[in-house]
Amino acid sequence: MGKNLVQKIVASHLVKGDMAAGQEIAIRIDQTLTQDSTGTMAYLQFEAMGVPRVKTKFSIAYVDHNMLQTGFENADDHRYIQTVAAKHGVYFSRPGNGICHQVHLERFGKPGWTLLGSDSHTPTGGGIGMLAIGAGGLDVAVAMAGGPYYLTMPKVCHVVLKGQLQPWVSAKDIILELLRQFTVKGGVGKVMEYGGEGVSSLSVPERATIANMGAELGATTSIFPSDERTLEFLKAQGRQDDWVALAADSDAIYDEEIIIDLDKLEPMIARPHSPDNVVKVKDIEGMPVDQVAIGSCTNSSYADMMKVAAILKGKTVHPDVSLVISPGSRQVYTMLAQNGALADMVAAGARILESACGPCIGMGQSPATDAVSIRTFNRNFYGRSGTPSAKVYLASPEVAAATAINGVLTDPRSLGQPVTVDLPDRFFINDNMVQPPAENPDDAQVIRGPNIKPFPINKPMPDIIEGKVLLKMGDNITTDHIMPSNAKLLPYRSNIPYLSDYCLTPVDPEFPARAKANGGGILVAGVNYGQGSSREHAALVPLYLGIKAVIAKSFARIHASNLINSGILPLVFVEQADYDTIEQGDELVIENAPAQVRSGDILIVDNRSKGLRYRVALAVSPRFKEILLAGGLLNYTKKGGEASDV
Amino acid sequence: MGKNLVQKIVASHLVKGDMAAGQEIAIRIDQTLTQDSTGTMAYLQFEAMGVPRVKTKFSIAYVDHNMLQTGFENADDHRYIQTVAAKHGVYFSRPGNGICHQVHLERFGKPGWTLLGSDSHTPTGGGIGMLAIGAGGLDVAVAMAGGPYYLTMPKVCHVVLKGQLQPWVSAKDIILELLRQFTVKGGVGKVMEYGGEGVSSLSVPERATIANMGAELGATTSIFPSDERTLEFLKAQGRQDDWVALAADSDAIYDEEIIIDLDKLEPMIARPHSPDNVVKVKDIEGMPVDQVAIGSCTNSSYADMMKVAAILKGKTVHPDVSLVISPGSRQVYTMLAQNGALADMVAAGARILESACGPCIGMGQSPATDAVSIRTFNRNFYGRSGTPSAKVYLASPEVAAATAINGVLTDPRSLGQPVTVDLPDRFFINDNMVQPPAENPDDAQVIRGPNIKPFPINKPMPDIIEGKVLLKMGDNITTDHIMPSNAKLLPYRSNIPYLSDYCLTPVDPEFPARAKANGGGILVAGVNYGQGSSREHAALVPLYLGIKAVIAKSFARIHASNLINSGILPLVFVEQADYDTIEQGDELVIENAPAQVRSGDILIVDNRSKGLRYRVALAVSPRFKEILLAGGLLNYTKKGGEASDV
Repeated sequence: MGKNLVQKIVASHLVKGDMAAGQEIAIRIDQTLTQDSTGTMAYLQFEAMGVPRVKTKFSIAYVDHNMLQTGFENADDHRYIQTVAAKHGVYFSRPGNGICHQVHLERFGKPGWTLLGSDSHTPTGGGIGMLAIGAGGLDVAVAMAGGPYYLTMPKVCHVVLKGQLQPWVSAKDIILELLRQFTVKGGVGKVMEYGGEGVSSLSVPERATIANMGAELGATTSIFPSDERTLEFLKAQGRQDDWVALAADSDAIYDEEIIIDLDKLEPMIARPHSPDNVVKVKDIEGMPVDQVAIGSCTNSSYADMMKVAAILKGKTVHPDVSLVISPGSRQVYTMLAQNGALADMVAAGARILESACGPCIGMGQSPATDAVSIRTFNRNFYGRSGTPSAKVYLASPEVAAATAINGVLTDPRSLGQPVTVDLPDRFFINDNMVQPPAENPDDAQVIRGPNIKPFPINKPMPDIIEGKVLLKMGDNITTDHIMPSNAKLLPYRSNIPYLSDYCLTPVDPEFPARAKANGGGILVAGVNYGQGSSREHAALVPLYLGIKAVIAKSFARIHASNLINSGILPLVFVEQADYDTIEQGDELVIENAPAQVRSGDILIVDNRSKGLRYRVALAVSPRFKEILLAGGLLNYTKKGGEASDV
Repeated sequence: MGKNLVQKIVASHLVKGDMAAGQEIAIRIDQTLTQDSTGTMAYLQFEAMGVPRVKTKFSIAYVDHNMLQTGFENADDHRYIQTVAAKHGVYFSRPGNGICHQVHLERFGKPGWTLLGSDSHTPTGGGIGMLAIGAGGLDVAVAMAGGPYYLTMPKVCHVVLKGQLQPWVSAKDIILELLRQFTVKGGVGKVMEYGGEGVSSLSVPERATIANMGAELGATTSIFPSDERTLEFLKAQGRQDDWVALAADSDAIYDEEIIIDLDKLEPMIARPHSPDNVVKVKDIEGMPVDQVAIGSCTNSSYADMMKVAAILKGKTVHPDVSLVISPGSRQVYTMLAQNGALADMVAAGARILESACGPCIGMGQSPATDAVSIRTFNRNFYGRSGTPSAKVYLASPEVAAATAINGVLTDPRSLGQPVTVDLPDRFFINDNMVQPPAENPDDAQVIRGPNIKPFPINKPMPDIIEGKVLLKMGDNITTDHIMPSNAKLLPYRSNIPYLSDYCLTPVDPEFPARAKANGGGILVAGVNYGQGSSREHAALVPLYLGIKAVIAKSFARIHASNLINSGILPLVFVEQADYDTIEQGDELVIENAPAQVRSGDILIVDNRSKGLRYRVALAVSPRFKEILLAGGLLNYTKKGGEASDV
């Protein structure tokens, strides 16, 4: 039986498990990438593992998120990442070198390789035939230390592209159409594998746009074959040696299939406040627009920018519109500056931002009150722009540029003769802003500004776990309750002690002080504890505060994993009524904790204050139990639990 | 007796007073400019005057300060300024069009004209032979309404430039040398008028660098003659018709004279934390540097940028340095993008920022903790960079670029063959981002976001002024106490109600609530009340809170003027011991207030709570009395007090 592309790459990287959808597997990671917002914590975690040098084939640290530098924290983080990377064998892409996914595609991505990145848009690498997956910082740290990446073997959805895109219709419209059909939950547990005759009409950067925004489907990742177009791109990047041909077998089996007819596709747009709220541009054209933002890891390639420049050339941005453009990489930026395209943009009145994530992550260029903003980005969640009342739409660069000139949402087909941009035979190649690691790590000094605090490390599970109930919560507590994240707190992602003063404060402002006064303790919660964002800080900060266990009616899956990774027990009441008998301040004890964890799925908790005894469940895999016994994934990895697997 | 340049321009614009140093004079204003940080308030004030259309020859509103847009406030302010400008006859320079002083020099400045700008670096226009003065927003509003500008006739200091700059020595070094000799107080009450054979060797942008940073001498302004070099610049800007020859008479008399020998000048640098802390670069070269920032209204001209590009070409920014560059205007930016210089900068690893003030005003690019930052800007005050521990130095673009490559402070003379940049015969001219005012003001709709609040307007002085003492303060209360200004509060400069909740809170956090509960009242203070920054908000916010009078042992001069402009009485205890008899909460009354103000310099205040009577002084000019009686400068202007003067 033939294999699909996903099965081929997984098979060649499989370390543990069976390659059957729904089964836990572990795969070897060839490359890792981090960005600066998640990277500081990932490297602090890596340092805590005590591994002197990364064991991947290639690891790189990008700086593209916190570029505004409105205080010392950002520059301190950049300097920490630069120096810790040098010491431990990681390449460093300096601020200004571009957006991680765009640069990685251009300079480092390789067909058939695996890439783990601490950013949810890491799947961009699928455009060049990588199995590229986004993960938490600790997962990436483990991969750098040589550990495999554990995941559930996904289903594979075959997306068959037929025909060819019509003039003024673009790769962005393909993924918008998929989002329209699948919704933002339609890709959960799946990899979107592209095939069909239409694939060959798409360049690597166009494929990358689709793979990038596949993250909005909820998919594990997306992947394209590696073909003549891939070779053409790699040649132009001076990397033809990195090319291998990769395609699904002709008799490959897929779990699902969907056919997209490119010939029939029209310019699409996602309305507020979800990437799947998609309609045709022509259905809402004429809407007055206040801001247009072009760039982001989704749509900032050389061809994207050249098309925009051609549309803007000789025109003036409409007086009611603020147009901002961020080239995706220094390669793109330099080429636009060399060939006059950038001059055309600036002359038309575009505001050129640094080559960075910028407004896509709400880092600047927040629109005015109630403004309509058309963006080439991948997410238009409520409030993400920094202006809660703004209405953010997602569309292609062609739609965006046409709209910037007209001041109203414009179907670019009204512009007449289409703009076509061929890939250059040779991109501008200059990796002088990618700093190799130090040759002699002993010479490299890691610089930690006052905002860089050591990472909290747990200890192996003690014989007796005991502590006061520090807080009793209700149902549906989110990670935003546990560890709030906003513009005020984002610069402190590498400062767990600072963040700890905000832990669970939306529930009880006194909680951090109480946790500190008691030297830690135990949390009690209702159903669905830890829902929402997957942020690791919702486990790291409780670890710092000395939380030893959380007993809840039920847990959100990812948060339970994060707690285990931090060595905090996620325990579920067997009798939900027991929840009612516990009060804040009760003294709880788990005797012979390690033995109880090893012996089965049920543990006994004594409530000494009430003289009661509870049965709680810990239904996790043997590997997770070992992680808990070791005091978290870091300690587990350190003592060889992961690194030895590879 | 011959006239100097200052006397010639003042004479041709004199509305009131004698042209003798130290005398109050009033001059007609030809042009005004505002930037967005001070502009919102200036236009709110202008609107409050009820004048439908500006009466200057040319008024323009720039947006260059609040460009990061980390919340809706900035974009709302931009939109307000754009629409209020359109309605009232003001040109609008859209965000991205450049830094006000650079753009004004290029496109609008005219030799022999007067310019009043709500920015302290307005004197940049002196480079093209304007009498260009920085002032508060209300002064600019009055000028837009047709009122004259009142100032003390300055002394004129003749700065005689001899010889010619040596290779790698630049205009920046001239003004740094002057700062070394004069200190930051050396220019107070003076205009620096440049002359001598050396002037003809300096281009208009070089002269503008000197005039710009003359503000750091404390000078009223600086001015250069209008000569062949001025004509050359205006021709290249397509504005030869704006040229007139302007020079001091050969027998002109000056109050002071200083000679600078250009031949002997070397590259200079100002050390932390004052622009006058100047030494030769060679005396401290070799110092490791973390950041280099090139741009600002001081050093962002075409020639400055071309020199920087030539130094960077083919090199790589040192790994320990973050280099940021902001072109001064869209004209400069476009030309650099057209001729390849920008590509050289980007290829070398420079981070290109928007054409705006940026890091010079602490808007982004804050250095790392303890970092050394070499900047081509005009101010290196403690904390201004956003990083209190940073050490900021001021130097020329040549020094900055050489340092960025080497990673240590570098005397550019070590680079060998000097870089020379000739002014182009023709600059890139495209004013498409300067929006003319609406032809029919009735069609123009002023858009006010929720952050734009109406400006508080006082009423004509009532017969009886009475109120409780809301706060009794000690000596040396600064405007930072009265109206704190920081990154948190800066976006609210157009929102007096919001700011009012922070008024005097460093002295007493309960003050705003108490003032509101009492519907206003009276303040009592010790000596030197209102020292420090000249910010108008320290009077506007108390006006909003209903403060009717401040009784103090003495006042700082500018704050007393600001209080009068807001219609708040600045009263001085005749018997300083009376201060001791007043308590917070005392009921004070001034009977027949208008009659008392008119009749002499002493007023009677009854303390009804204590049964005491105080004598207080109001020793101000008849014009100031009229302003107080009218309820502030706005009302005074509105009823024709100023507009009728012109």
